[in-house]
Amino acid sequence: MNSFLKYQNEQNISLFTDFYELTMCASYFDHKKFEPATFDLFIRRLPPNRGYLMFAGLEQALQYLSNVKFTEEHLRYLKTQGFSQPFLDYLRDFKFTGDVWAAPEGTVAFPCEPLIRVTAPIIEAQLAETFLLNTVNLQTMIATKAARVVNAARGKAVIEFGLRREHGIDAGMKVARCSYIAGCQGTSNVLAGLAYGIPVFGTMAHSFIMSYENEIDAFRAFAKTFPANSTLLIDTYEDMAGAEKAAVVAKELEKTGHRLSGVRLDSGDLAETSKKVRKLLDQQGLSYVRIFASGDLDEFEIENLQKQGARIDAFGVGTKLGTSADKPYVDVIYKLCETMTADSTYAPMMKLSEGKVTLPGRKQVYRFKDAQGKFKKDVIALADEKVDGEPLMGKVMEKGKVTYDFPSLSQIRAAASENLSLLPDKYKKVTGAAEYPVELSQNLEKMMENLKRKLLKNEISESS
Amino acid sequence: MNSFLKYQNEQNISLFTDFYELTMCASYFDHKKFEPATFDLFIRRLPPNRGYLMFAGLEQALQYLSNVKFTEEHLRYLKTQGFSQPFLDYLRDFKFTGDVWAAPEGTVAFPCEPLIRVTAPIIEAQLAETFLLNTVNLQTMIATKAARVVNAARGKAVIEFGLRREHGIDAGMKVARCSYIAGCQGTSNVLAGLAYGIPVFGTMAHSFIMSYENEIDAFRAFAKTFPANSTLLIDTYEDMAGAEKAAVVAKELEKTGHRLSGVRLDSGDLAETSKKVRKLLDQQGLSYVRIFASGDLDEFEIENLQKQGARIDAFGVGTKLGTSADKPYVDVIYKLCETMTADSTYAPMMKLSEGKVTLPGRKQVYRFKDAQGKFKKDVIALADEKVDGEPLMGKVMEKGKVTYDFPSLSQIRAAASENLSLLPDKYKKVTGAAEYPVELSQNLEKMMENLKRKLLKNEISESS
Repeated sequence: MNSFLKYQNEQNISLFTDFYELTMCASYFDHKKFEPATFDLFIRRLPPNRGYLMFAGLEQALQYLSNVKFTEEHLRYLKTQGFSQPFLDYLRDFKFTGDVWAAPEGTVAFPCEPLIRVTAPIIEAQLAETFLLNTVNLQTMIATKAARVVNAARGKAVIEFGLRREHGIDAGMKVARCSYIAGCQGTSNVLAGLAYGIPVFGTMAHSFIMSYENEIDAFRAFAKTFPANSTLLIDTYEDMAGAEKAAVVAKELEKTGHRLSGVRLDSGDLAETSKKVRKLLDQQGLSYVRIFASGDLDEFEIENLQKQGARIDAFGVGTKLGTSADKPYVDVIYKLCETMTADSTYAPMMKLSEGKVTLPGRKQVYRFKDAQGKFKKDVIALADEKVDGEPLMGKVMEKGKVTYDFPSLSQIRAAASENLSLLPDKYKKVTGAAEYPVELSQNLEKMMENLKRKLLKNEISESS
Repeated sequence: MNSFLKYQNEQNISLFTDFYELTMCASYFDHKKFEPATFDLFIRRLPPNRGYLMFAGLEQALQYLSNVKFTEEHLRYLKTQGFSQPFLDYLRDFKFTGDVWAAPEGTVAFPCEPLIRVTAPIIEAQLAETFLLNTVNLQTMIATKAARVVNAARGKAVIEFGLRREHGIDAGMKVARCSYIAGCQGTSNVLAGLAYGIPVFGTMAHSFIMSYENEIDAFRAFAKTFPANSTLLIDTYEDMAGAEKAAVVAKELEKTGHRLSGVRLDSGDLAETSKKVRKLLDQQGLSYVRIFASGDLDEFEIENLQKQGARIDAFGVGTKLGTSADKPYVDVIYKLCETMTADSTYAPMMKLSEGKVTLPGRKQVYRFKDAQGKFKKDVIALADEKVDGEPLMGKVMEKGKVTYDFPSLSQIRAAASENLSLLPDKYKKVTGAAEYPVELSQNLEKMMENLKRKLLKNEISESS
């Protein structure tokens, strides 16, 4: 029995792909199709209730493109799957040699806007599809969800607490990363603390309380170990009785020159209980003790609690954030938008299928601001068009080499925060968000009209 | 910038934990609480529409328990997080020394039935919580979902196709594994093919078709590369026109002594189109060409298609399986059920919170069969009780050493298949499944009554 993590490393990332990427590549190879093609990675539509997306996942996408290679073990395995020796020999020397443009992580984005644009020999560009989608799907989904949760918390701290129900190891790490990017104060995931320097937080479980004969013994034991930093879980038996005992322990701590950090509520009517607990603590001169709440929270529930005037200072948000439970994926796709024809001219491509129309050609997104400097509208245009507004994508890779100065996680987080502050509130509502205007440039529209006409003509003549 | 996978290996698995596990352990250490405690891992309730659970994740859980240890890098990091030197010294020599009982992977299980039971010094047992929950949550959720999808397909092949939207690397691997355990024929994930020996499948994307001037050129190119094994995607422009061209290519293949494997539909009205495509193929003597369908499928949609008499031979099921989209988590929890008191006697523990009552004591689950050998009911009993019926859990670890002869993936898959066949159909319905009877033994009920009385008495006297 191998360790389940044995193959989960950089060296094997090339095989972390759908089998069809390899069969298509084998056929391209067979037919000597090495011309460059351009693919757009974008999200077709917003998940329910979301008024915007927060793009994340670029750093891992570029790591993949920089590292993708095939080992002898891979080639032996692929041989058993029916690939020809010439193709396997080609894979032995495979590396990604293309150009990539992308929006920075932390960018506020909207449907159909290219987030990553890959131009490379079609085999190289095609092979990257699965990994790029996988990493952008998870990270953009979580950053978007976390941004909504943080927004609903209106300045109160949000801690990402979902590790136990996130989908495996890599998800646990990426959820912590993207939640932090989107404004969470930290995570419960200790390994993410080590790997990314994200602040880690945690209190205690009900089992800790239960392992002592009396609740107050558990409180005292914990406060003795962490006198400067204890948050006591008060709902194991009965909230208010728990709060009273926490107050006793807080007074005991004061005598040793320490202050109880907080109490945690994890069940019941959090709005009502938090008000009662606040009153009890305040009456005892413990207004500095913070109330931390957790238990089945998400942006909808937090908004609810705020409306009810809950006296909660910080939210621990777990499963529903860490799995984006109301919509555990985004409609991220990777579509061919340009190929090179036999006579070496670029040919824009588009898909016409109902509800699945794609935008042809190499594109850029331009953002326009209003007089107050807030985001006003975006225009998707052809890359070589002259358009006012701020371009969202920059070059991040040239001929297979990263040309991008990777921002630190703090820098990404700061950029995300600024972007969110420039997005008007009506697009950030937890429910009923307004639709942000995204227009197509005249040249892009014209290209689409021409292509549609040509494709329909082709299709009719071909089928008849 | 580190590789995003740098810390995702066995050596660092100990820190893949919620911070509170470590703070609780530090306080236990501080107070010399080294007595054994027993925790049950179980699922509190069934996700919507599910009538049963398929347990998976044991192999990874035991790998974790066998490997958990702390490196110097971990200890240095934990020191910065406020842990005391004596506790860090304790962690330096930490290993798991407990006993574990568990049900085999592929077991059909029901709410509140212990699936893994850990008895160990409380620090060791507590520390394991996050990882065990994380791995059982994902894998049991996916095995359960996949079993439903396979059941809805009624003997037609199901391939797991969700890699691009699964939550990161580890999820991609575990989803492939658990889908296969639950009866899928294979996966699109090539790395899972290499790592686990799971059959891999794939066809082609729309981009492959679009990269050729004409659809039929793309078909011919692919069939030339894979003459013995081509499935042609026929819906890029128009299904029936695509089917006609596929038939032309099939006839061309016949002349070279080969047979077209199949055609794939990925959009539109799959039931109607599959019937028309089947008729067209049959009329051309191509009854051997299989129809493969994909696109937003899950157990509900597959049942729908079957009801409409769709002529589909195999289903590619992606995002909705790979993320368990209708419910992307299970309510798996890990609860203290027994501690040792100061006088070295075992004390059963239970939680009384409304809707969150837990079952006290060390337990076993017994399964009863009817006269036809089908599953009839389960009884949760105390471990030392004498109960008829087949015990579900066996000992898998003793004093920290695995005592379990790990079954191969094929063996787990065969056991899962047999278990599912023994579960009466009424519990396997896609919607409206009946509730399987799970009873508590008399001794367990008696223990709960006594404990409730004691706890309530304690609580009243404590609070007053």
